[in-house]
Amino acid sequence: MPDKKPLKQLLMIPGPTPIPTRILAAMNHEMIGHRGPVFSKILAEVIDGLKWAYQTKNDVMVFPCSGTGGMETAVVNTLSAGDKSLHVNIGNFGARWIKIAKAYGVEAIDLKVEMGKACDPKVLAAELAKDTKKEIKAVFMQQNETSTGVINDVKALAATVRQSHPDVLILVDAVSGLLAQDLRTDEWDLDVVVSGSQKAFMVPPGIAAVSMSPRAWKAYENSKLPKHYWDIKTQKKFADKGQTYTTPPESIIFGMHEAIKMIREEGLENIFARHANNKDIVRNAFKAIGCKLLAEDACASPAVTAIFPPDGVDAEKVRSEIRNHFGVELAPGQGDLKGKLFRIGHLGYVDKLDLIAAIAAIELLFEKLGAKIEIGKGVKAALETI
Amino acid sequence: MPDKKPLKQLLMIPGPTPIPTRILAAMNHEMIGHRGPVFSKILAEVIDGLKWAYQTKNDVMVFPCSGTGGMETAVVNTLSAGDKSLHVNIGNFGARWIKIAKAYGVEAIDLKVEMGKACDPKVLAAELAKDTKKEIKAVFMQQNETSTGVINDVKALAATVRQSHPDVLILVDAVSGLLAQDLRTDEWDLDVVVSGSQKAFMVPPGIAAVSMSPRAWKAYENSKLPKHYWDIKTQKKFADKGQTYTTPPESIIFGMHEAIKMIREEGLENIFARHANNKDIVRNAFKAIGCKLLAEDACASPAVTAIFPPDGVDAEKVRSEIRNHFGVELAPGQGDLKGKLFRIGHLGYVDKLDLIAAIAAIELLFEKLGAKIEIGKGVKAALETI
Repeated sequence: MPDKKPLKQLLMIPGPTPIPTRILAAMNHEMIGHRGPVFSKILAEVIDGLKWAYQTKNDVMVFPCSGTGGMETAVVNTLSAGDKSLHVNIGNFGARWIKIAKAYGVEAIDLKVEMGKACDPKVLAAELAKDTKKEIKAVFMQQNETSTGVINDVKALAATVRQSHPDVLILVDAVSGLLAQDLRTDEWDLDVVVSGSQKAFMVPPGIAAVSMSPRAWKAYENSKLPKHYWDIKTQKKFADKGQTYTTPPESIIFGMHEAIKMIREEGLENIFARHANNKDIVRNAFKAIGCKLLAEDACASPAVTAIFPPDGVDAEKVRSEIRNHFGVELAPGQGDLKGKLFRIGHLGYVDKLDLIAAIAAIELLFEKLGAKIEIGKGVKAALETI
Repeated sequence: MPDKKPLKQLLMIPGPTPIPTRILAAMNHEMIGHRGPVFSKILAEVIDGLKWAYQTKNDVMVFPCSGTGGMETAVVNTLSAGDKSLHVNIGNFGARWIKIAKAYGVEAIDLKVEMGKACDPKVLAAELAKDTKKEIKAVFMQQNETSTGVINDVKALAATVRQSHPDVLILVDAVSGLLAQDLRTDEWDLDVVVSGSQKAFMVPPGIAAVSMSPRAWKAYENSKLPKHYWDIKTQKKFADKGQTYTTPPESIIFGMHEAIKMIREEGLENIFARHANNKDIVRNAFKAIGCKLLAEDACASPAVTAIFPPDGVDAEKVRSEIRNHFGVELAPGQGDLKGKLFRIGHLGYVDKLDLIAAIAAIELLFEKLGAKIEIGKGVKAALETI
C-alpha cells in the first residue's frame, strides 16, 4: 500500500466529471461582450447542440446556476400555489423536487419508491388511477437518480402518464442522465427536461438547461408562482436575440461550445454505448469481488453505481483511505445510505482504464481494511467486460 | 481608419471585465470533489477574502448565479408578501430590484431619481419621513448604478436611514461597485450586500456573494417568501462545513481564489485609487473632446462612464464601427438611454494604457462619423490625468 501522498487525482464522482483538455483549453479564453455578435453565435450553437442532445425541436433555455436551479425553474414556470403535482421519488433528488414544489405551496404527492429500485410503471398507473377528479397537473421524475444509481424507464413512465392523463405535464430531471442513456424529449412527449453542464457534457458546473414543450408554454401562461430570475419567458425573449437575460458564465458557455463539438463527433449511440459498458465493467467487477450492489441489473444506472463494501469494511473509511493512498475520489452514500455504501461515478469523461485503475485500488484497499477477498478478481472481471 | 478586421479585442464594458492571465491560469484546473477537503479549504479562503473586501465580520455566502440572482436572494430571505420596501432607484438596476420585489408580492415604493443623478440623502430623508407608521421594513439601493455610471453615497444614505428608521434593513447592490470604491459593510451598518465575480474581482461571471448581518438573520426568521435555491440559511449550513448547497461552479471559485490573492497584494486603498484615476482619465478626455457626460462629477462612477457622442453622431453607430475597425467593445445605453449614449467600462483589470487606446480610437471614429473635433485633444487630456 503506497503511503506517500498520491501524485494524481482520479475523480470518480457522479459530477462534476473530469474535463477533457480540449474543453479546458476552450474555456481558457478572454471575456467578450455577452451582448455582441460573437457571443450570440456561440450561444446559438450551444443551444442547437443542446436540442440535438435532448432530441427535441422544443425551446431550450440556458440559466446561470447549478442543476437544482433548473429544477426550480421547471416548478415556478408551470404551476401555481395549491396545484397538485405527483412526484416519482426514487431517491434524494426526487425528494428535492418535492421540497422545491412544497416551498412554493404546491401540493406535492410523494410517490416514494424503495431506495435502489426504479418506479414500476404499474405503481405509477395505480397512483394516477386514484386521481379520479383529474386534479394532478404535473408528474415529476428523475431519469437517473444520482443518489442511488438507479435509472427510471422514462419512456414507459411517460407512456403510462399519457394513458390516463393525456394533458398532464411531464417534467424530467435529466441532469445526471442526459447523454448517459437515450432520452427522446419529443418522441416520448416530455414537456420539461432539465440538464446541467457538469455531467455527461464533461464541462464544469455553472449552467443548467431547461426545455419547454408547447404544452409547458401553455401552462406558463396560467402559472402564478412568483418568479423573476427563473422566469423562462424572459429568458426566451433574450434567447431569441442570441443572449441570456442576466450575465452568462461565459467560460462555461465556451466549454459547452467545445463539448457540443466533441459529442457530435462521437455520436449519441456511441455515447450511450460507452456509458452502458462503463456500467457493466463496474458491476461485473464488484459482483466478482463479492460486493452487494444497491441497484438491480434491470434499473442500474449508466452514470453511477452504489456499492456496499464487504462485511466489516466501513464505507466512509474506504473513501478517506483511498483518497489518501491513491488519490481516488469516490462519492458517499446520501441520506439514509450515508456511511453504508460508496458510489463510483462513471459518466462523462471517464474511460475504461480509469475504471480498471479505480477497481484495482479499491480491491487493494478492501483487503487492507480486513475484507477476506482474493485480490485481482475484480480487475479480471472488469477486463473481461471491456 | 483601418479597414481590416482588428487583430485584437479591447473589452471596455462594465463587466465581465478583462481577466488577468493569472486568474485564467488558475481556472484552467481539473475538477475536484466539491465535498472534499481540498475544495473546502479553497472555498473558505475565498469567503475570507470576500469578507475582507466587504470590510465585514458578517456571514458571506456564495451562490452559483449571476448578480441578479444575488439581488433575488436578498429579497426572498428578508421579506414577506405585503411587506413595504423603499427602493432608491437611480437607474435600470434600481428598477430591476423593484421588479423582483413586486414579483414576490412585496409593496415596493419607487423612489425614482432623475437618470444620471445620485440620490440626495435629503430626498431619501423626506421619503422616509412620510412613513409615520414605520411600515417600511427595508431600504434597497445600488452602490454603483451600472446603467448610468452614477455612484450613490451609500455611507450618507445609510446614515439617513438609521436616523429615522434605526432597525430597518439596508440592502445594497454592490455588484459593480465593490472594490471600485470604498464600501464599509460593518462601519456603515449595511445588512445585506450583494456582489458578483465578474466586476472588479476580475473573474468571469458565475457566482454572486451575499452578506447577512445579525439584523438580516433576524428578518430571515420572519420572512415568509417562498425559497429553496436562494434559501440563505441552507447555504449557510453548507458554508459552515466548507461546502455550497448545490454543486458550485468550481472554475469560478478557483478564479476567485487567485483573484483574492491579487487584490490582497494590491490592497484596498490602491484598488480604490486606481479606479478613481480611471474615472478621471475618461472624464477629462471626453470633456476635452467636447462630449456631454451623463453623470455630474460629484456622483461619477469609478467603474463606468456614460458618454453622449458629439452632435450628429449616432451612439450605436459608434459602438458597431469601433468594434469593426478597432475591436473595441463598448456598452450601449440602457432603457430610455439606448441609442443616445454609449458607456465605457473602466473597472477590474483595466489599465491606464487600455483607456488611452480606447480614447484614441473613439476620437478617430468621431471624426470619421462627421464630428467637428480636433483629433488628439482627448488623448492629451487623458495623458495629463495619469
